[in-house]
Amino acid sequence: MPKLIAESLIRDVPDFPQPGILFKDITPVLADPSAMREVLDRMVEWSEQCKPDYVVGIESRGFVFGMPLAMRLNVGFIPVRKPGKLPFDCCSEEYSLEYGTNSVEIHIDAVKPGQKVLVIDDLLATGGTASAACRLIEKLGGVVCGCGFLIELKFLHGRKALEGRNVLSLIKFD
Amino acid sequence: MPKLIAESLIRDVPDFPQPGILFKDITPVLADPSAMREVLDRMVEWSEQCKPDYVVGIESRGFVFGMPLAMRLNVGFIPVRKPGKLPFDCCSEEYSLEYGTNSVEIHIDAVKPGQKVLVIDDLLATGGTASAACRLIEKLGGVVCGCGFLIELKFLHGRKALEGRNVLSLIKFD
Repeated sequence: MPKLIAESLIRDVPDFPQPGILFKDITPVLADPSAMREVLDRMVEWSEQCKPDYVVGIESRGFVFGMPLAMRLNVGFIPVRKPGKLPFDCCSEEYSLEYGTNSVEIHIDAVKPGQKVLVIDDLLATGGTASAACRLIEKLGGVVCGCGFLIELKFLHGRKALEGRNVLSLIKFD
Repeated sequence: MPKLIAESLIRDVPDFPQPGILFKDITPVLADPSAMREVLDRMVEWSEQCKPDYVVGIESRGFVFGMPLAMRLNVGFIPVRKPGKLPFDCCSEEYSLEYGTNSVEIHIDAVKPGQKVLVIDDLLATGGTASAACRLIEKLGGVVCGCGFLIELKFLHGRKALEGRNVLSLIKFD
């Protein structure tokens, strides 16, 4: 596959959000409609084998890829959010951080048993959030047919947390 | 204009996020691609007089309307976020809450002088966040050519905070 325009647009920001971390800033990708179109084209192509009923986007950068992908696939969009943000009854799932845990939530009526769902986020790091999102969907009886990311930080081994799942990442950093 | 499908899908959730507040839950709208398409069609139609260079989406429900609108208009998307979320150098703007203040941020290189920008969010309540987003764009020399919302809570008088601006709201609650 040829390189994506998006890859040349990603901006390295040192020491964000903490000293020693080199943050991959995707805002220049969002600001370039050709780059975004190319990213979405690739995600659509990959989605075709799955024929999902829904696209789940993980708060909040997952929303900016997940919703336009859902529109392109003509399916609904479901937000997975941080605790306390979704107004209706929720199902919650924890994941580990370096120190402690965090959790994500989904509305209990978001997915019906047997429905196929794609999980979308901007970045695959340790895979903790994406894996928790997958478990949320499965708790509701849904079937996760793929996890798609713009960026994969390979040195954080996020694919291990998603082992056995259909994973797409468009831009990889070693 | 005929009623939108979206209007019939909005779900009232009582006592969220605080007792006494009737929250307008838009997740059933997001989950319905026909409803979303209709909402975006209306936003595109309204945007045509403005011919924006960018769409700004306000974190985080503004992202789910702002990005697909930007894609439809073939322009870039710019996130306005809560403090500490954007990695690059930021410009910040405060707004008042019932008790105290909060602020929103934009990357300092997001908009160039003279560029036209649409501001999109899901909900116009008191207008504090949207008005702060407009001021951020203007601090960078940009021109706000419109503020678009799915829902307007008219009893909170948000249009007053946006006085003199081109405001679109698709669904109004008295």
